[in-house]
Amino acid sequence: MAYDKQLPKRSEDISGWYNTLMLQAELADYGPAKGTMILRPYGYAIWELVQKKLDAMFKANGVENAYFPLFIPESLLNKEKSHLEGFSPELAVVTIGGGEELQEKLIVRPTSETIMYASYSKWIKSWRDLPVMINQWNSAVRWEKRTYMFLRTTEFLWQEGHTAHASHEEAIATQKWAMDTYAKTFREAYAMPGYIGNKSSSETFAGASSTMTYETLMPGGKALQSATSHDLGQNFAKAFDVKFQSKEGQNEYVWQTSWGVSTRSLGGLFMIHGDDKGLRLPPELAPYQVVILPIRADDELNSFIAKISQNLIDAGIRVKIDDRDGESLGFKINKWEMKGAPIRLEIGAKELTTGQIKMVRRDNGEAMMVGVDTITDSIKDALDKIQTNLFNQAEQALIDNTHSSDNYEDFKKQMDTTKGFIKAYWCGNPACEEAIKAETTATTRCKTDSTTKGKCIYCGADNSDEWYFAQSY
Amino acid sequence: MAYDKQLPKRSEDISGWYNTLMLQAELADYGPAKGTMILRPYGYAIWELVQKKLDAMFKANGVENAYFPLFIPESLLNKEKSHLEGFSPELAVVTIGGGEELQEKLIVRPTSETIMYASYSKWIKSWRDLPVMINQWNSAVRWEKRTYMFLRTTEFLWQEGHTAHASHEEAIATQKWAMDTYAKTFREAYAMPGYIGNKSSSETFAGASSTMTYETLMPGGKALQSATSHDLGQNFAKAFDVKFQSKEGQNEYVWQTSWGVSTRSLGGLFMIHGDDKGLRLPPELAPYQVVILPIRADDELNSFIAKISQNLIDAGIRVKIDDRDGESLGFKINKWEMKGAPIRLEIGAKELTTGQIKMVRRDNGEAMMVGVDTITDSIKDALDKIQTNLFNQAEQALIDNTHSSDNYEDFKKQMDTTKGFIKAYWCGNPACEEAIKAETTATTRCKTDSTTKGKCIYCGADNSDEWYFAQSY
Repeated sequence: MAYDKQLPKRSEDISGWYNTLMLQAELADYGPAKGTMILRPYGYAIWELVQKKLDAMFKANGVENAYFPLFIPESLLNKEKSHLEGFSPELAVVTIGGGEELQEKLIVRPTSETIMYASYSKWIKSWRDLPVMINQWNSAVRWEKRTYMFLRTTEFLWQEGHTAHASHEEAIATQKWAMDTYAKTFREAYAMPGYIGNKSSSETFAGASSTMTYETLMPGGKALQSATSHDLGQNFAKAFDVKFQSKEGQNEYVWQTSWGVSTRSLGGLFMIHGDDKGLRLPPELAPYQVVILPIRADDELNSFIAKISQNLIDAGIRVKIDDRDGESLGFKINKWEMKGAPIRLEIGAKELTTGQIKMVRRDNGEAMMVGVDTITDSIKDALDKIQTNLFNQAEQALIDNTHSSDNYEDFKKQMDTTKGFIKAYWCGNPACEEAIKAETTATTRCKTDSTTKGKCIYCGADNSDEWYFAQSY
Repeated sequence: MAYDKQLPKRSEDISGWYNTLMLQAELADYGPAKGTMILRPYGYAIWELVQKKLDAMFKANGVENAYFPLFIPESLLNKEKSHLEGFSPELAVVTIGGGEELQEKLIVRPTSETIMYASYSKWIKSWRDLPVMINQWNSAVRWEKRTYMFLRTTEFLWQEGHTAHASHEEAIATQKWAMDTYAKTFREAYAMPGYIGNKSSSETFAGASSTMTYETLMPGGKALQSATSHDLGQNFAKAFDVKFQSKEGQNEYVWQTSWGVSTRSLGGLFMIHGDDKGLRLPPELAPYQVVILPIRADDELNSFIAKISQNLIDAGIRVKIDDRDGESLGFKINKWEMKGAPIRLEIGAKELTTGQIKMVRRDNGEAMMVGVDTITDSIKDALDKIQTNLFNQAEQALIDNTHSSDNYEDFKKQMDTTKGFIKAYWCGNPACEEAIKAETTATTRCKTDSTTKGKCIYCGADNSDEWYFAQSY
């Protein structure tokens, strides 16, 4: 057996590598409608692992799941003007239902602020009803003509959290909590370091007062906006008349937040850790943490392998025995390297006799012999090391590719060569931001946490804040 | 506090009771687009409990989850003719995307056979790729003009399992396994007894060779089709060219199944167990199995309650302490009776002193005093009894409302009065089935498991099989 196509080298042709890998590793496939993607079981299992982690953290903080309809009447979407303007070029519109032309067009959910807050205005009456903290796991549709698997698709899976509070303070604390939750998940599960900060007003979510973002670095030096959390202020509350009676008996508008992470983040996961051989999945998000390749098939070996496998499963490790017929050991080794399984065990007659098993780490290719009696501990230890190593490698790349610049010529040169993040001062004037984008294709990704001030890299204005700039996916 | 509207009595006005209850118990709300429904957190939590149970059983049998796009190009849906004919009156159609009229219309997923099998035909090459067993948790859209919450909505949540096999035998075994899984879940979790059997050809899923169904009895004597499992034969395989190379080297079409259960089943759950006071949720599917109502608020009582609550949570019981301000104890008792929490504890100063807690069962209103030291065991025991009692009551109702008839006049009278299921012989001729439907609004629900033959209740033809007839939701 062989694959239809050789996997291009990541170091030479990252797009070719990525597109081929998504198909060959069976993560995804192209859907029949333009811009759509199928999440195959191996890719979907990774999303399920993300869901499980986030869902537990959301619920521990009092967030409840719900489901709001896919179809939003056009008039409802029109209620918050800047929101509508932000989304209108990307909408998919249902005009026929049950064989008849609809009187009012229905928009396929691009995000659920409008439909949810129309309900919040009915449900919320008193301060006793607050906070409302609702999350949805669903899909959203924003029109795209060209698919870039995971990273840019017409329909994507995500979660969208939507909260309402009695005070702005509490809303801001929730916006931060959501971003902390994402940051923890990216660092500890995705093994993806990133920068956290506020977006500039041109990059703020349509209808929000402020947007916090988690920005990660992709190979090739582009930034990926990996998760966002919005302080909506009272903008939507006013548009949808979401009011409550305060403890003091006043009628007041609620303060709201929304926050989301999508399957786009999986594109980042695949990009950031991959190598020329294919995926390298961090153990926390690997559908199979250990893949066992039997070197030959007989009853004695099968029961030896079954016992090892069961011990690992009992220890909470996700295991796959690949006993598929018709593929050579060499083919299977390549396949699971491509599919990014963190650890591979090769077990044959020799291992049965000696009790020493060959364990190979995907992250660095290191092979070692481990005793069958202590294999569970050896594997746990190796999985921890792989998780840490992938994070450290990504962090080193982030550090190496984050530059500071106070000279626009250097800035342009950097963006023209190895790219990466550039820390630079910007006066906050959208005209400078736009000019920089036009000349370098770099945009402001987020404000840094530095409080020092400097001269705007474009216009030279004093007292400017420091921002991360990068080209973006 | 009081509710806007008195809950109508279930025994007097079941529709009014049901519609009011869905809103007041905060299970659901109407969506802004016609026919759509919002699943509120309390209702969605029940669906999450269903998902958790089914998902574990699916995965234990080798089923993997995946996600296929929402949008199906019209040409793809047209490939299996009887399937298209079955669904075309119910479709929602996207004609505009990204601001432009689309060249090809996109159908919003009414079910995913067509889009999935187009992929199966690419993915399946050899017998080694079989079986393919993929499930999706998603939503489907079938146009409805009038919403009946849960029971009839334009968009509903469901799971759809889609398998492909090398032999018809294996496909049929899978069709049966899926129905067994549903039946187990309905009996053990929903506490809903039902009849299992094959549908008549007029009621068979569009494009399938056979459809198995789980039919339950609703109050008022109507039947609810609660889950279905289809043997698709090779019909779709031929339409979508899903072939594999057999062990013997032949190119053969795969044999397929599909099976699903939706949030419609929750409508059945609410209907079947409810009473004049509201819901009675079986403990297996109750978001909160125990609700604790503090009789007054002070630190000592709060810590006493927190300790009881923590012990219950540690024992795996789902607990809610309702310490909401501004509602009287009486209001809260009514509220949680309406919301169907299986057990209620009322805890005040007296309980703190005596260590004897008042525990009230929702299913039969029985109140008993239980000692605080053994309360966890008392509650576990009571939850088991409630689960069993709800099933037994529903089973008794099913038995009491299942009649046999060999006389069409009696049949008509029965369908005109208390309705219910009628076992009767039918020759299999669609003309008789249609005439019975026209005259009584009763349809064949499924074939009984009896092998005895008799005279067709309508035309008198000999050698007819026995079927369950009922009016249906």
